[in-house]
Amino acid sequence: MRIAVLGTGGVGRTVAAALAGLGHDVTIGTRDPEALAARTEPDGMGNPPFSAWHADHHEIPVRAYAEIGDRAELVVNATLGSGSIPALEAVGAEQLAGVTILDISNPLDFSQSFPPSLFVSNTDSLAERIQASFPDARVVKSLNTVTAALMVDPRSLAGGAHSMFVCGDDDGAKAQVTDLLRALGWSQIVDLGDLTAARALEMYVMLWIRLYQAAGTPMVNVAVVT
Amino acid sequence: MRIAVLGTGGVGRTVAAALAGLGHDVTIGTRDPEALAARTEPDGMGNPPFSAWHADHHEIPVRAYAEIGDRAELVVNATLGSGSIPALEAVGAEQLAGVTILDISNPLDFSQSFPPSLFVSNTDSLAERIQASFPDARVVKSLNTVTAALMVDPRSLAGGAHSMFVCGDDDGAKAQVTDLLRALGWSQIVDLGDLTAARALEMYVMLWIRLYQAAGTPMVNVAVVT
Repeated sequence: MRIAVLGTGGVGRTVAAALAGLGHDVTIGTRDPEALAARTEPDGMGNPPFSAWHADHHEIPVRAYAEIGDRAELVVNATLGSGSIPALEAVGAEQLAGVTILDISNPLDFSQSFPPSLFVSNTDSLAERIQASFPDARVVKSLNTVTAALMVDPRSLAGGAHSMFVCGDDDGAKAQVTDLLRALGWSQIVDLGDLTAARALEMYVMLWIRLYQAAGTPMVNVAVVT
Repeated sequence: MRIAVLGTGGVGRTVAAALAGLGHDVTIGTRDPEALAARTEPDGMGNPPFSAWHADHHEIPVRAYAEIGDRAELVVNATLGSGSIPALEAVGAEQLAGVTILDISNPLDFSQSFPPSLFVSNTDSLAERIQASFPDARVVKSLNTVTAALMVDPRSLAGGAHSMFVCGDDDGAKAQVTDLLRALGWSQIVDLGDLTAARALEMYVMLWIRLYQAAGTPMVNVAVVT
Protein backbone atom coordinates (compact mmCIF):
# COMPACT_ATOMS: atom_id res chain seq x y z
CA MET A 1 0.00 0.00 0.00
CA ARG A 2 1.18 3.55 -0.71
CA ILE A 3 1.45 5.24 2.69
CA ALA A 4 2.45 8.82 3.50
CA VAL A 5 3.66 9.49 7.04
CA LEU A 6 3.37 13.15 8.07
CA GLY A 7 5.88 14.19 10.69
CA THR A 8 9.59 13.64 11.07
CA GLY A 9 9.92 13.40 14.86
CA GLY A 10 10.48 10.21 16.82
CA VAL A 11 6.95 8.92 16.18
CA GLY A 12 6.95 9.59 12.45
CA ARG A 13 10.38 8.01 11.98
CA THR A 14 9.47 4.89 13.98
CA VAL A 15 6.16 4.36 12.20
CA ALA A 16 7.59 5.06 8.73
CA ALA A 17 10.42 2.57 9.23
CA ALA A 18 8.08 -0.10 10.58
CA LEU A 19 5.58 0.26 7.74
CA ALA A 20 8.38 0.20 5.16
CA GLY A 21 9.66 -2.93 6.92
CA LEU A 22 6.26 -4.55 6.34
CA GLY A 23 6.76 -3.98 2.62
CA HIS A 24 4.63 -0.89 2.15
CA ASP A 25 5.59 1.90 -0.23
CA VAL A 26 6.23 4.62 2.37
CA THR A 27 6.92 8.32 1.85
CA ILE A 28 7.64 10.79 4.64
CA GLY A 29 6.01 14.20 4.36
CA THR A 30 7.43 17.35 5.89
CA ARG A 31 7.06 21.09 5.47
CA ASP A 32 10.46 21.83 3.94
CA PRO A 33 12.58 18.79 3.01
CA GLU A 34 15.68 20.87 2.27
CA ALA A 35 15.59 22.64 5.64
CA LEU A 36 14.99 19.29 7.35
CA ALA A 37 17.97 17.69 5.62
CA ALA A 38 20.20 20.64 6.48
CA ARG A 39 19.54 20.50 10.25
CA THR A 40 22.41 19.10 12.30
CA GLU A 41 21.06 19.66 15.84
CA PRO A 42 18.75 17.36 17.83
CA ASP A 43 15.08 18.34 17.40
CA GLY A 44 12.89 19.97 20.08
CA MET A 45 12.09 16.58 21.63
CA GLY A 46 15.76 15.56 21.86
CA ASN A 47 15.72 13.23 18.85
CA PRO A 48 18.92 13.07 16.77
CA PRO A 49 18.77 15.24 13.64
CA PHE A 50 16.58 13.73 10.92
CA SER A 51 19.48 13.47 8.51
CA ALA A 52 21.26 11.04 10.87
CA TRP A 53 18.20 8.80 10.96
CA HIS A 54 17.60 9.14 7.24
CA ALA A 55 21.12 8.00 6.43
CA ASP A 56 20.02 4.61 7.75
CA HIS A 57 16.64 4.74 5.99
CA HIS A 58 17.47 6.29 2.63
CA GLU A 59 14.99 3.94 0.94
CA ILE A 60 12.17 6.07 2.39
CA PRO A 61 11.76 9.21 0.26
CA VAL A 62 11.10 12.55 1.93
CA ARG A 63 8.80 14.97 0.14
CA ALA A 64 7.08 18.27 0.84
CA TYR A 65 3.51 17.90 2.09
CA ALA A 66 2.10 19.28 -1.15
CA GLU A 67 3.86 16.57 -3.14
CA ILE A 68 2.85 13.45 -1.24
CA GLY A 69 -0.93 13.47 -1.46
CA ASP A 70 -1.27 11.94 -4.89
CA ARG A 71 0.94 9.05 -3.90
CA ALA A 72 -0.97 8.04 -0.77
CA GLU A 73 -3.76 5.52 -0.20
CA LEU A 74 -3.33 6.01 3.54
CA VAL A 75 -1.94 9.02 5.38
CA VAL A 76 -0.55 8.64 8.91
CA ASN A 77 -0.76 11.86 10.90
CA ALA A 78 2.28 11.71 13.19
CA THR A 79 2.74 15.46 13.50
CA LEU A 80 2.43 17.35 16.78
CA GLY A 81 -1.23 17.90 17.57
CA SER A 82 -0.86 21.66 17.29
CA GLY A 83 0.51 21.32 13.75
CA SER A 84 -1.75 18.57 12.46
CA ILE A 85 -4.41 20.57 10.64
CA PRO A 86 -1.87 22.95 9.01
CA ALA A 87 0.16 19.93 7.83
CA LEU A 88 -2.94 18.28 6.34
CA GLU A 89 -3.94 21.57 4.72
CA ALA A 90 -0.51 21.65 3.10
CA VAL A 91 -1.14 18.16 1.72
CA GLY A 92 -4.41 19.49 0.33
CA ALA A 93 -8.08 18.67 0.84
CA GLU A 94 -8.50 17.44 -2.74
CA GLN A 95 -5.59 15.03 -2.37
CA LEU A 96 -7.13 13.69 0.85
CA ALA A 97 -10.60 13.04 -0.58
CA GLY A 98 -11.41 9.36 -0.10
CA VAL A 99 -8.09 8.74 1.63
CA THR A 100 -7.84 7.11 5.06
CA ILE A 101 -6.15 9.37 7.61
CA LEU A 102 -4.80 7.36 10.51
CA ASP A 103 -4.55 9.99 13.22
CA ILE A 104 -2.03 8.92 15.85
CA SER A 105 -1.37 12.42 17.23
CA ASN A 106 -2.45 13.96 20.54
CA PRO A 107 -3.67 17.51 21.22
CA LEU A 108 -1.03 18.14 23.86
CA ASP A 109 -0.59 21.64 25.21
CA PHE A 110 2.85 22.06 26.75
CA SER A 111 2.44 25.79 27.34
CA GLN A 112 2.00 25.23 31.10
CA SER A 113 5.02 22.87 31.21
CA PHE A 114 4.82 19.25 32.38
CA PRO A 115 2.54 17.37 32.61
CA PRO A 116 0.81 18.86 29.58
CA SER A 117 -2.93 19.51 29.26
CA LEU A 118 -5.02 19.12 26.11
CA PHE A 119 -5.91 21.98 23.79
CA VAL A 120 -9.13 20.24 22.80
CA SER A 121 -11.01 17.70 24.92
CA ASN A 122 -14.24 16.55 26.53
CA THR A 123 -16.86 17.63 23.96
CA ASP A 124 -14.56 17.60 20.93
CA SER A 125 -11.30 16.01 19.85
CA LEU A 126 -8.42 16.62 17.49
CA ALA A 127 -9.51 13.66 15.35
CA GLU A 128 -13.00 15.15 14.99
CA ARG A 129 -11.52 18.54 14.11
CA ILE A 130 -9.45 16.87 11.40
CA GLN A 131 -12.55 15.06 10.09
CA ALA A 132 -14.52 18.33 10.11
CA SER A 133 -11.68 20.10 8.25
CA PHE A 134 -11.43 17.33 5.65
CA PRO A 135 -14.97 15.93 5.37
CA ASP A 136 -14.12 13.80 2.32
CA ALA A 137 -11.26 12.02 4.09
CA ARG A 138 -11.86 8.96 6.28
CA VAL A 139 -10.37 9.63 9.68
CA VAL A 140 -9.50 6.76 12.03
CA LYS A 141 -8.03 7.34 15.50
CA SER A 142 -5.64 4.75 16.84
CA LEU A 143 -2.11 4.20 18.23
CA ASN A 144 -2.13 7.55 20.10
CA THR A 145 -2.37 5.70 23.43
CA VAL A 146 1.13 4.17 23.49
CA THR A 147 4.74 5.19 22.97
CA ALA A 148 6.14 4.90 19.43
CA ALA A 149 8.21 1.79 20.16
CA LEU A 150 5.06 -0.05 21.26
CA MET A 151 2.95 1.24 18.37
CA VAL A 152 5.07 -0.75 15.94
CA ASP A 153 6.15 -3.63 18.19
CA PRO A 154 3.46 -4.49 20.75
CA ARG A 155 5.00 -7.91 21.32
CA SER A 156 7.97 -6.21 22.98
CA LEU A 157 5.73 -5.72 26.06
CA ALA A 158 4.20 -8.78 27.79
CA GLY A 159 4.26 -10.70 24.51
CA GLY A 160 1.62 -8.34 23.11
CA ALA A 161 -0.98 -9.10 25.82
CA HIS A 162 -2.31 -5.55 26.01
CA SER A 163 -4.90 -3.51 24.13
CA MET A 164 -5.11 -1.14 21.19
CA PHE A 165 -8.17 0.96 20.43
CA VAL A 166 -9.62 2.08 17.13
CA CYS A 167 -12.51 4.37 16.25
CA GLY A 168 -13.84 6.18 13.21
CA ASP A 169 -16.94 6.86 11.18
CA ASP A 170 -15.97 4.80 8.13
CA ASP A 171 -16.05 1.05 8.60
CA GLY A 172 -13.89 0.40 5.54
CA ALA A 173 -11.18 2.73 6.78
CA LYS A 174 -11.34 1.15 10.23
CA ALA A 175 -10.92 -2.30 8.71
CA GLN A 176 -7.92 -1.04 6.71
CA VAL A 177 -6.30 0.32 9.88
CA THR A 178 -7.17 -2.82 11.84
CA ASP A 179 -5.37 -4.92 9.22
CA LEU A 180 -2.35 -2.67 9.57
CA LEU A 181 -2.46 -3.01 13.38
CA ARG A 182 -2.56 -6.79 13.11
CA ALA A 183 0.41 -6.74 10.75
CA LEU A 184 2.33 -4.75 13.36
CA GLY A 185 1.57 -7.42 15.95
CA TRP A 186 -1.54 -6.14 17.71
CA SER A 187 -3.94 -8.91 18.67
CA GLN A 188 -6.17 -7.22 21.29
CA ILE A 189 -7.86 -4.55 19.15
CA VAL A 190 -10.98 -2.92 20.60
CA ASP A 191 -13.34 -1.10 18.22
CA LEU A 192 -14.85 1.78 20.21
CA GLY A 193 -17.28 2.87 17.52
CA ASP A 194 -17.56 6.21 15.78
CA LEU A 195 -15.05 9.06 15.79
CA THR A 196 -16.53 10.73 18.88
CA ALA A 197 -14.73 8.00 20.84
CA ALA A 198 -11.52 9.85 19.93
CA ARG A 199 -12.41 12.19 22.81
CA ALA A 200 -11.99 9.27 25.18
CA LEU A 201 -8.76 8.08 23.52
CA GLU A 202 -7.18 11.53 23.60
CA MET A 203 -8.26 12.19 27.21
CA TYR A 204 -6.90 8.78 28.21
CA VAL A 205 -3.44 10.01 27.30
CA MET A 206 -3.45 12.06 30.50
CA LEU A 207 -3.70 8.79 32.44
CA TRP A 208 -1.02 7.27 30.24
CA ILE A 209 1.36 10.09 31.19
CA ARG A 210 0.70 9.35 34.88
CA LEU A 211 1.30 5.65 34.30
CA TYR A 212 4.55 6.49 32.54
CA GLN A 213 5.60 8.58 35.53
CA ALA A 214 4.54 5.89 38.04
CA ALA A 215 6.20 3.07 36.11
CA GLY A 216 9.33 5.05 35.25
CA THR A 217 9.19 3.82 31.68
CA PRO A 218 7.13 4.65 28.59
CA MET A 219 6.87 0.91 27.88
CA VAL A 220 3.53 0.75 29.64
CA ASN A 221 0.01 0.11 28.40
CA VAL A 222 -3.31 -1.25 29.61
CA ALA A 223 -5.10 -4.48 28.80
CA VAL A 224 -8.88 -4.42 28.74
CA VAL A 225 -10.24 -7.06 31.13
CA THR A 226 -13.78 -8.41 30.69
CA MET B 1 -13.28 2.60 61.57
CA ARG B 2 -16.17 5.07 61.64
CA ILE B 3 -17.09 5.71 58.00
CA ALA B 4 -19.74 8.01 56.59
CA VAL B 5 -20.92 7.28 53.05
CA LEU B 6 -22.51 10.28 51.34
CA GLY B 7 -25.04 9.36 48.68
CA THR B 8 -27.91 6.88 48.62
CA GLY B 9 -27.85 5.80 44.96
CA GLY B 10 -26.57 2.48 43.69
CA VAL B 11 -22.93 3.36 44.38
CA GLY B 12 -23.50 4.64 47.92
CA ARG B 13 -25.61 1.62 48.83
CA THR B 14 -23.11 -0.89 47.44
CA VAL B 15 -20.12 0.73 49.10
CA ALA B 16 -21.88 1.22 52.45
CA ALA B 17 -22.99 -2.41 52.59
CA ALA B 18 -19.53 -3.67 51.66
CA LEU B 19 -17.73 -1.54 54.23
CA ALA B 20 -20.23 -2.56 56.91
CA GLY B 21 -19.62 -6.16 55.87
CA LEU B 22 -15.91 -5.64 56.55
CA GLY B 23 -16.82 -4.74 60.12
CA HIS B 24 -16.65 -0.95 59.85
CA ASP B 25 -19.05 1.32 61.71
CA VAL B 26 -20.85 2.77 58.67
CA THR B 27 -23.40 5.58 58.53
CA ILE B 28 -25.14 6.75 55.35
CA GLY B 29 -25.52 10.48 54.90
CA THR B 30 -28.27 12.09 52.87
CA ARG B 31 -29.92 15.48 52.53
CA ASP B 32 -33.28 14.62 54.06
CA PRO B 33 -33.59 11.17 55.68
CA GLU B 34 -37.36 11.42 56.14
CA ALA B 35 -37.99 12.31 52.52
CA LEU B 36 -35.65 9.51 51.45
CA ALA B 37 -37.47 6.96 53.59
CA ALA B 38 -40.85 8.10 52.29
CA ARG B 39 -40.00 7.63 48.60
CA THR B 40 -41.59 4.59 46.99
CA GLU B 41 -40.54 5.07 43.35
CA PRO B 42 -37.27 3.99 41.72
CA ASP B 43 -34.68 6.78 41.77
CA GLY B 44 -33.52 8.76 38.74
CA MET B 45 -30.98 6.05 37.82
CA GLY B 46 -33.57 3.27 37.98
CA ASN B 47 -32.48 1.90 41.38
CA PRO B 48 -35.26 0.53 43.60
CA PRO B 49 -36.42 3.00 46.26
CA PHE B 50 -33.92 3.39 49.09
CA SER B 51 -36.40 2.11 51.64
CA ALA B 52 -36.53 -1.28 49.90
CA TRP B 53 -32.75 -1.58 50.07
CA HIS B 54 -32.61 -0.29 53.62
CA ALA B 55 -35.09 -2.92 54.81
CA ASP B 56 -32.32 -5.44 54.12
CA HIS B 57 -29.61 -3.21 55.63
CA HIS B 58 -31.30 -1.72 58.68
CA GLU B 59 -28.07 -2.10 60.66
CA ILE B 60 -26.68 0.89 58.69
CA PRO B 61 -28.08 4.12 60.14
CA VAL B 62 -29.15 6.94 57.84
CA ARG B 63 -28.55 10.48 59.05
CA ALA B 64 -28.75 14.00 57.64
CA TYR B 65 -25.43 15.30 56.28
CA ALA B 66 -25.12 17.81 59.10
CA GLU B 67 -25.32 15.01 61.67
CA ILE B 68 -22.75 12.57 60.36
CA GLY B 69 -19.54 14.60 60.37
CA ASP B 70 -18.64 14.14 64.02
CA ARG B 71 -18.97 10.39 63.68
CA ALA B 72 -16.65 9.94 60.74
CA GLU B 73 -12.95 9.20 60.51
CA LEU B 74 -13.37 8.68 56.78
CA VAL B 75 -16.00 10.11 54.46
CA VAL B 76 -16.79 8.40 51.15
CA ASN B 77 -18.17 10.82 48.58
CA ALA B 78 -20.56 8.69 46.53
CA THR B 79 -22.88 11.52 45.54
CA LEU B 80 -23.42 12.62 41.95
CA GLY B 81 -20.54 14.83 40.90
CA SER B 82 -22.82 17.82 40.46
CA GLY B 83 -24.01 17.49 44.06
CA SER B 84 -20.71 16.63 45.74
CA ILE B 85 -19.59 20.01 47.01
CA PRO B 86 -23.08 20.99 48.27
CA ALA B 87 -23.30 17.65 50.11
CA LEU B 88 -19.89 18.16 51.72
CA GLU B 89 -20.83 21.73 52.62
CA ALA B 90 -23.89 20.33 54.38
CA VAL B 91 -21.62 17.99 56.35
CA GLY B 92 -19.60 21.07 57.30
CA ALA B 93 -16.02 22.19 56.76
CA GLU B 94 -15.21 22.05 60.48
CA GLN B 95 -16.42 18.47 60.74
CA LEU B 96 -14.25 17.55 57.76
CA ALA B 97 -11.02 19.07 59.10
CA GLY B 98 -8.40 16.35 59.29
CA VAL B 99 -10.81 13.77 57.88
CA THR B 100 -10.00 11.64 54.85
CA ILE B 101 -12.46 12.18 52.01
CA LEU B 102 -12.40 9.23 49.62
CA ASP B 103 -13.83 10.78 46.47
CA ILE B 104 -15.30 8.09 44.23
CA SER B 105 -17.59 10.42 42.26
CA ASN B 106 -17.29 11.63 38.67
CA PRO B 107 -18.05 15.08 37.26
CA LEU B 108 -20.49 13.74 34.69
CA ASP B 109 -22.60 16.17 32.72
CA PHE B 110 -25.69 14.44 31.32
CA SER B 111 -27.22 17.65 30.01
CA GLN B 112 -26.36 16.71 26.40
CA SER B 113 -27.70 13.16 26.92
CA PHE B 114 -25.58 10.00 26.44
CA PRO B 115 -22.66 9.58 26.44
CA PRO B 116 -22.11 12.31 29.04
CA SER B 117 -19.29 14.84 29.04
CA LEU B 118 -17.46 16.21 32.09
CA PHE B 119 -18.34 19.50 33.77
CA VAL B 120 -14.72 19.90 34.90
CA SER B 121 -11.68 18.36 33.20
CA ASN B 122 -8.25 18.77 31.67
CA THR B 123 -6.70 21.52 33.85
CA ASP B 124 -8.83 20.87 36.95
CA SER B 125 -10.85 18.04 38.49
CA LEU B 126 -13.75 17.51 40.83
CA ALA B 127 -11.41 16.02 43.44
CA GLU B 128 -9.21 19.14 43.33
CA ARG B 129 -12.28 21.37 43.61
CA ILE B 130 -13.33 19.42 46.70
CA GLN B 131 -9.83 19.76 48.16
CA ALA B 132 -9.83 23.50 47.43
CA SER B 133 -13.27 23.86 49.04
CA PHE B 134 -12.19 21.91 52.15
CA PRO B 135 -8.47 22.63 52.50
CA ASP B 136 -8.25 20.99 55.93
CA ALA B 137 -9.67 17.69 54.69
CA ARG B 138 -7.45 15.05 53.10
CA VAL B 139 -8.89 14.17 49.70
CA VAL B 140 -8.01 10.89 48.00
CA LYS B 141 -9.36 9.95 44.57
CA SER B 142 -9.99 6.30 43.87
CA LEU B 143 -12.64 3.75 42.80
CA ASN B 144 -14.26 6.20 40.33
CA THR B 145 -12.91 4.15 37.40
CA VAL B 146 -15.09 1.04 37.82
CA THR B 147 -18.74 0.11 38.32
CA ALA B 148 -19.97 -0.18 41.92
CA ALA B 149 -20.08 -3.98 41.92
CA LEU B 150 -16.39 -4.09 41.02
CA MET B 151 -15.40 -1.38 43.50
CA VAL B 152 -16.31 -3.67 46.36
CA ASP B 153 -15.61 -7.05 44.75
CA PRO B 154 -12.74 -6.85 42.27
CA ARG B 155 -12.26 -10.62 42.46
CA SER B 156 -15.56 -11.05 40.65
CA LEU B 157 -13.74 -10.07 37.42
CA ALA B 158 -10.76 -12.13 36.23
CA GLY B 159 -9.99 -13.16 39.80
CA GLY B 160 -9.04 -9.57 40.60
CA ALA B 161 -6.29 -9.35 37.95
CA HIS B 162 -6.97 -5.73 37.01
CA SER B 163 -5.94 -2.34 38.33
CA MET B 164 -7.16 0.30 40.75
CA PHE B 165 -5.67 3.78 40.93
CA VAL B 166 -5.19 6.09 43.89
CA CYS B 167 -3.96 9.67 44.16
CA GLY B 168 -3.93 12.44 46.73
CA ASP B 169 -1.75 15.01 48.42
CA ASP B 170 -1.68 13.36 51.86
CA ASP B 171 0.37 10.17 52.11
CA GLY B 172 -1.32 9.09 55.35
CA ALA B 173 -4.77 9.39 53.83
CA LYS B 174 -3.62 7.52 50.73
CA ALA B 175 -2.27 4.70 52.91
CA GLN B 176 -5.59 4.57 54.78
CA VAL B 177 -7.50 4.26 51.49
CA THR B 178 -5.03 1.73 50.12
CA ASP B 179 -5.61 -0.46 53.19
CA LEU B 180 -9.35 -0.23 52.58
CA LEU B 181 -8.86 -1.16 48.90
CA ARG B 182 -6.82 -4.21 49.89
CA ALA B 183 -9.51 -5.26 52.35
CA LEU B 184 -12.04 -5.09 49.50
CA GLY B 185 -9.86 -7.42 47.45
CA TRP B 186 -7.80 -5.07 45.30
CA SER B 187 -4.24 -6.31 44.76
CA GLN B 188 -3.07 -4.23 41.75
CA ILE B 189 -3.13 -0.73 43.25
CA VAL B 190 -1.25 1.97 41.36
CA ASP B 191 -0.30 5.16 43.22
CA LEU B 192 -0.40 7.98 40.64
CA GLY B 193 0.96 10.66 42.97
CA ASP B 194 -0.65 13.91 44.01
CA LEU B 195 -4.24 14.98 43.58
CA THR B 196 -3.69 16.57 40.16
CA ALA B 197 -3.70 12.97 38.86
CA ALA B 198 -7.46 13.03 39.57
CA ARG B 199 -7.75 14.91 36.25
CA ALA B 200 -6.47 11.79 34.51
CA LEU B 201 -8.69 9.44 36.53
CA GLU B 202 -11.82 11.47 35.88
CA MET B 203 -11.05 11.91 32.16
CA TYR B 204 -10.38 8.17 31.91
CA VAL B 205 -14.03 7.57 32.75
CA MET B 206 -14.92 8.68 29.22
CA LEU B 207 -12.90 5.71 27.93
CA TRP B 208 -14.52 3.47 30.52
CA ILE B 209 -17.96 4.41 29.16
CA ARG B 210 -16.81 3.44 25.66
CA LEU B 211 -15.41 0.14 26.95
CA TYR B 212 -18.74 -0.51 28.70
CA GLN B 213 -20.55 0.12 25.41
CA ALA B 214 -18.12 -2.04 23.42
CA ALA B 215 -18.17 -4.90 25.95
CA GLY B 216 -21.92 -4.69 26.55
CA THR B 217 -21.36 -4.99 30.29
CA PRO B 218 -20.19 -2.64 33.05
CA MET B 219 -18.06 -5.47 34.45
CA VAL B 220 -15.03 -4.22 32.57
CA ASN B 221 -11.77 -2.67 33.73
CA VAL B 222 -8.17 -2.31 32.61
CA ALA B 223 -5.01 -3.92 33.92
CA VAL B 224 -1.82 -1.90 33.76
CA VAL B 225 0.84 -3.83 31.86
CA THR B 226 4.53 -3.05 32.36
